[in-house]
Amino acid sequence: MFVVNKKQALGIFSKIKKARKLLLCVHVSPDLDSLASCLAMDLVLNRLGKKTKIISYSQIPSRFSFLPGVEKIETADFAKIDLSGFDLFLVLDCAQERMITRSLFPKNFPKNFKIINIDHHFTNVKFGDLNLVALTSSTAELLYELFLIWKIKIDKKLAELLLFGLVSDTGCFRYSLTTQKTLEAGAELMKKGAVLSEVVLRTFRSYNFKTLKYWGKILDNLQIEEKLGFVWSKISKAECEELGITPVDIDGAADQFLGVVEGTKFGLILNEESENYIRGSLRSRDGFDVSRIAQKLGGGGHKAAAGFSLEMCLAEAEEKVLAVIREELEK
Amino acid sequence: MFVVNKKQALGIFSKIKKARKLLLCVHVSPDLDSLASCLAMDLVLNRLGKKTKIISYSQIPSRFSFLPGVEKIETADFAKIDLSGFDLFLVLDCAQERMITRSLFPKNFPKNFKIINIDHHFTNVKFGDLNLVALTSSTAELLYELFLIWKIKIDKKLAELLLFGLVSDTGCFRYSLTTQKTLEAGAELMKKGAVLSEVVLRTFRSYNFKTLKYWGKILDNLQIEEKLGFVWSKISKAECEELGITPVDIDGAADQFLGVVEGTKFGLILNEESENYIRGSLRSRDGFDVSRIAQKLGGGGHKAAAGFSLEMCLAEAEEKVLAVIREELEK
Repeated sequence: MFVVNKKQALGIFSKIKKARKLLLCVHVSPDLDSLASCLAMDLVLNRLGKKTKIISYSQIPSRFSFLPGVEKIETADFAKIDLSGFDLFLVLDCAQERMITRSLFPKNFPKNFKIINIDHHFTNVKFGDLNLVALTSSTAELLYELFLIWKIKIDKKLAELLLFGLVSDTGCFRYSLTTQKTLEAGAELMKKGAVLSEVVLRTFRSYNFKTLKYWGKILDNLQIEEKLGFVWSKISKAECEELGITPVDIDGAADQFLGVVEGTKFGLILNEESENYIRGSLRSRDGFDVSRIAQKLGGGGHKAAAGFSLEMCLAEAEEKVLAVIREELEK
Repeated sequence: MFVVNKKQALGIFSKIKKARKLLLCVHVSPDLDSLASCLAMDLVLNRLGKKTKIISYSQIPSRFSFLPGVEKIETADFAKIDLSGFDLFLVLDCAQERMITRSLFPKNFPKNFKIINIDHHFTNVKFGDLNLVALTSSTAELLYELFLIWKIKIDKKLAELLLFGLVSDTGCFRYSLTTQKTLEAGAELMKKGAVLSEVVLRTFRSYNFKTLKYWGKILDNLQIEEKLGFVWSKISKAECEELGITPVDIDGAADQFLGVVEGTKFGLILNEESENYIRGSLRSRDGFDVSRIAQKLGGGGHKAAAGFSLEMCLAEAEEKVLAVIREELEK
């Protein structure tokens, strides 16, 4: 049995087979699941004889340069490129239009230009002409099912791309959306030749030294509110500058440390990205819905991981955020 | 196909069926794989109608008190207990006698008292009367195969115990001994009712707050030798005391941070456990054999994880260890 709707999956395959040239994209600030899934789909399309182009709104971080095929991805804004000549736009791992472009989303598309939206986020707003949204651990796991339904031969290269997506988006099978099917998919991808230890080395064992020093600073600054059950840390622009680090590493720290303290419901990091601009990251430990707190601060996200930004100084942000958290937990 | 030798597995089962009262033990300083595997085996033996007793040389750390059945384990030294009345000693997850007792290992056993040694460490010295040693990710994975061969019904309680062992000893499928079979075993145990998110919560999301502050200190003190490719940190007794922490948490830091810096082969932590007593932990990142370094310092271990102890002050130990490492890497 599949999580993916088989009939819908076959409908999409028939659309793809009819298309001549397809556009694909990774999401804004792409992560490994977005990149690897997109490259896996691209590989399959090329093997079916299709012409493709992959665009990315953001620059691809150099730490992902090991991914086979990543050099094919062009930095381009979907709202500003010439869409004539494409008949299908395959959007993977994007819950909403804002994950494709931060510009105004185009309204008038060329005749015959259709959007197929394939995603695993339960928050997906179904903005496509066809929307295949299934609650799997990762877009890679969803594609794995899709390729089985499409009867695509999964060779070593394809298996490796899918395993990168699956392993990275589950924290290597640690996050709550990891099901029996996720482990089975991982096992099958290993059987097809994907080397798990190589995926783990690239995904969880390749941080730069400065990132670890940054983690040290986050832990030095970590505080606990035992009674209400949460931890929080903050890091100033000056501290980041002293470490020679840019805020791009903040999520690593959030995923590593915010959800691991016993007796707590969740954790928070406040990061002073620039003067009077604070970014907050929340991670749940035990099922507590951190998006409730993010929403009260003008942000959003999911139960397990959410975020927000505030235009004020770090001390002011800390006071405001702690007040919101205390109100939420005490009510 | 099984990793475990089926004929040998059935031979052991026939010995167990004939036994009336069995002794089991966890290893010195038990970890979760040792405890959970032993409790899983105990559960199976009890269901077969066997009388059992479980001993532990070390006190069981209170952080493992959530394990069902853990209260049955008695703190006792194998070298000093009355063995009459037992006819089988099932030793799980112990590579050598020193993992059973730190006292002198007894030589003369009662007539009919036999030792069955079941373990996944490739360094196992086969000290038992029967030795079932198979290179699986964990003793729990080995027991999973054994129970399949024995045709034991795996219910939710048994599945959960095995998943605790399997997940903890693989760093949740991250360590290099994780195979396709390991993931398949994990999937099957979930199918039998084990809840992965609960296992992950207990195993990787339940550190005490002080442990995180200790990690921060380790990271503050972390240094890198870029040219030779390793990182090292040290922590003094005074620093531990200031944090109110005991060295029992050192392994958490080693597993978390020593093998994750890109461009390095391995990492080292030197921990001043008491005055003039330094314990060193080594973790490999990319397959480098750290046991080579541990052996040169009078210690031992495996390719991926090794350790040693030195009776000298921290500064002296640092100088000595770095000299050994440089000699080893430059040759």
